Amino acid sequence: MAKEKKLVEAITSMEEDFAQWYTDVVKKAELIEYSSIRGCMIIRPNGYAIWENIQRELDQAFKATGVENVYMPMFIPESLLQKEKDHVEGFAPEVAWVTQGGTEPLQERLCVRPTSETLFCDFYANIIQSYRDLPKLYNQWCSVVRWEKTTRPFLRSMEFLWQEGHTAHATAEEAEERTIQMLNVYADFCEQVLAIPMIKGRKSEKEKFAGANATYTIEALMHDGKALQSGTSHNFGDGFSKAFGIQYTDKENKLQYVHQTSWGMSTRIIGAIIMVHGDDSGLVLPPRIAPTQVMIIPINQNKEGVMEAALNLKEKLSEYRVKVDSSDKSPGWKFSEQEMRGIPLRVEIGPKDIEANQAVIVRRDTREKIIVSLDEIATKVGETLVKMQSDMLERARNHRDSHTYIATTMEEFEKTVAEKPGFIKAMWCGDEACEKEIKDKTGATSRCMPFEQEHLADNCVCCGKPAKTMAYWGKAY
Amino acid sequence: MAKEKKLVEAITSMEEDFAQWYTDVVKKAELIEYSSIRGCMIIRPNGYAIWENIQRELDQAFKATGVENVYMPMFIPESLLQKEKDHVEGFAPEVAWVTQGGTEPLQERLCVRPTSETLFCDFYANIIQSYRDLPKLYNQWCSVVRWEKTTRPFLRSMEFLWQEGHTAHATAEEAEERTIQMLNVYADFCEQVLAIPMIKGRKSEKEKFAGANATYTIEALMHDGKALQSGTSHNFGDGFSKAFGIQYTDKENKLQYVHQTSWGMSTRIIGAIIMVHGDDSGLVLPPRIAPTQVMIIPINQNKEGVMEAALNLKEKLSEYRVKVDSSDKSPGWKFSEQEMRGIPLRVEIGPKDIEANQAVIVRRDTREKIIVSLDEIATKVGETLVKMQSDMLERARNHRDSHTYIATTMEEFEKTVAEKPGFIKAMWCGDEACEKEIKDKTGATSRCMPFEQEHLADNCVCCGKPAKTMAYWGKAY
Repeated sequence: MAKEKKLVEAITSMEEDFAQWYTDVVKKAELIEYSSIRGCMIIRPNGYAIWENIQRELDQAFKATGVENVYMPMFIPESLLQKEKDHVEGFAPEVAWVTQGGTEPLQERLCVRPTSETLFCDFYANIIQSYRDLPKLYNQWCSVVRWEKTTRPFLRSMEFLWQEGHTAHATAEEAEERTIQMLNVYADFCEQVLAIPMIKGRKSEKEKFAGANATYTIEALMHDGKALQSGTSHNFGDGFSKAFGIQYTDKENKLQYVHQTSWGMSTRIIGAIIMVHGDDSGLVLPPRIAPTQVMIIPINQNKEGVMEAALNLKEKLSEYRVKVDSSDKSPGWKFSEQEMRGIPLRVEIGPKDIEANQAVIVRRDTREKIIVSLDEIATKVGETLVKMQSDMLERARNHRDSHTYIATTMEEFEKTVAEKPGFIKAMWCGDEACEKEIKDKTGATSRCMPFEQEHLADNCVCCGKPAKTMAYWGKAY
Repeated sequence: MAKEKKLVEAITSMEEDFAQWYTDVVKKAELIEYSSIRGCMIIRPNGYAIWENIQRELDQAFKATGVENVYMPMFIPESLLQKEKDHVEGFAPEVAWVTQGGTEPLQERLCVRPTSETLFCDFYANIIQSYRDLPKLYNQWCSVVRWEKTTRPFLRSMEFLWQEGHTAHATAEEAEERTIQMLNVYADFCEQVLAIPMIKGRKSEKEKFAGANATYTIEALMHDGKALQSGTSHNFGDGFSKAFGIQYTDKENKLQYVHQTSWGMSTRIIGAIIMVHGDDSGLVLPPRIAPTQVMIIPINQNKEGVMEAALNLKEKLSEYRVKVDSSDKSPGWKFSEQEMRGIPLRVEIGPKDIEANQAVIVRRDTREKIIVSLDEIATKVGETLVKMQSDMLERARNHRDSHTYIATTMEEFEKTVAEKPGFIKAMWCGDEACEKEIKDKTGATSRCMPFEQEHLADNCVCCGKPAKTMAYWGKAY
């Protein structure tokens, strides 16, 4: 019992210190381990298996829209990075530089890719000649490096895993359509698979990607009321293609510049899963993304017939991702571990259950216990997983909606930020000066100008001039 | 017709210049594109899709043996790389060094991983305490960098993709067993999926991995008679664990060092697929690894009913990886493209075929034409793919066996190397001096001491002293 308590006690409670709770969970659920390189984490099997499921789901969704995968070099020559002015200004201060190869100093420094726009542009300039070569719909799964000063597992690390899609189109319309299409792929994935509802919208000029015409974003609200930018999709127009000379001959045999997009989602989204769904016992994973959906825990496993029954049960549940915990730990310890790791369902089976031809299903999120006949267990487990998935989405949506506030004056805005962590909806004139003033006064940044606009007032919450848009604001990770 | 010819003429014939043929094929089949970074290639969709299939097959095979995936940082601090003496000597001369992060010079240089033994050891030292923590069976899919002077697509590039498995065990026996087990996983995969027969054996002391007790290898023979090391599996014993202090308490509560292994296969194997199976029309992909297994090519596609019939056919063949080439190119051009890309089967369907309720299957490897009723086409395509897969393996095995020679004297050895490209089997005393002399005289290196030994003679082919082993020798990529 002392040992069983230890595992749970090892986590700080969310109310006490949310940041510490987060750090405790990623460590105790064995998602990551710190490495000896500052700001670089080791993703352990429990964490990487979540990423593998994310990759499988997203990759399928990408390919269904015609996207193909490629692999680009991890190095970018300094001269290539410098070809697009805004882009180099945005990224050069935070890259890692390779200056020596083997025993020789390099003639030109290479940066470790922080993102691969410049490499894709260079590639596209070589392979695109005619309108017949368009569109190009390429994506890559890789790791990138950004030399961050402060880092946190998944949320902000020097190296992280992601996918980056890069497309080239004949027309501006097609590029804009693709930018929005991929944002929708992300939002649908987060909602349906990760049970995280997203606000879809456009970033302000200040917050957009270095070199983009427009950046679209999906924004989620964490349990502590902070926002997390969860995926972005950029429309570059023809800015990069002019800088890199990516031209094609159209059907009238005229030279035209291509229009480009890029879009990315990273291991950061694992941070969102943790901070939206977790509780004081650890992780809670949505069934569709959980590497293990059902953990069968035999009770009195040394009694005759128990292990056999547990293994039979596993067989019956083989259409799900199911495991049996047959280790020599106590059932209480096993429960704690299953809860810490966020495995959606545990199924307990002991001598009394076997006698009664039943087992006990326990939901991780609600801890509801469901006693069910062994004859119906496969159906019931399936139903419970589906129910848990939709309940988790509903809870997350309720949490977000009940932590979304409206401010029509700066006084209201400041009071809300100080007292009620969450999203603030407020009208905005669109000027960067107001955006900056709001940030300086409250610490809240503009999250996005949502596609679903509301008219809350006529005037900007900050300067009082006529408002151009409603925006979401909040403190963010 | 001029255009159709162009595609095929673009490849140099194998007989004329095998190296040029190889370069032509990887470019014309659009497997890779050169990048602006010396020695780094861009893997294009046709190439990456092959790698995705390799990953899927291998990953499944690994997981079936209990392996779990993780992700380690891409950087190694110089001090960490230096912890194992032989290892650092082997790798330090060929790594890329990061010396600056953002705007600051680093206090300690970081190398971009050439392989991750040191990172795994550091990790294992942190997470392994007791015998209950063993074995650890971890793998990662990633890219690594080796600062090579001369590079060739897939075969030797500065950056390449691979998987690296790293395991830790309680006993030496268990580590040895895992080393051989993973070598067998590689050999079975190559034989069954890639249709490439492998010689399994042990590397000489000179050729083994930096820091290993023993390196095992699978060696394949390319069409030009050169050998290609296609995968390796290393037994480290407790050398690394002593250098890194990876200890566990055993059941008697005594401190013990773990025993470790590592094993890797890379995008290099795509080079083997090309050089074992390709011909003067381009790639020939074994059906099990081909991203597209069947290309349907409509003949007279603008005639009424033809495109519809092609799409119906696609539906009928949906259990295979099938596409329809409905572009506006001529059928002849489409044939050339399908052949260049190595798509195992093409199915031609035109107005006359539709009238006769038939289609024409053409095998890529033999160019055999099979006229088959549309009612039986799904079955026939399946049978033909299976037959082609096994024929390709048989042809590759026959080629290898008919290009494997025996030498019992140095005169024979030198004459064979000079006149008959292939493997040479010869007895060896085991001394590095003879290995070196053979290399200096003939250019052939010891490929491995095969598990299947034969007694060809009593004495070393080089020095005449009593032989300890039979070895395979050859010129290698």
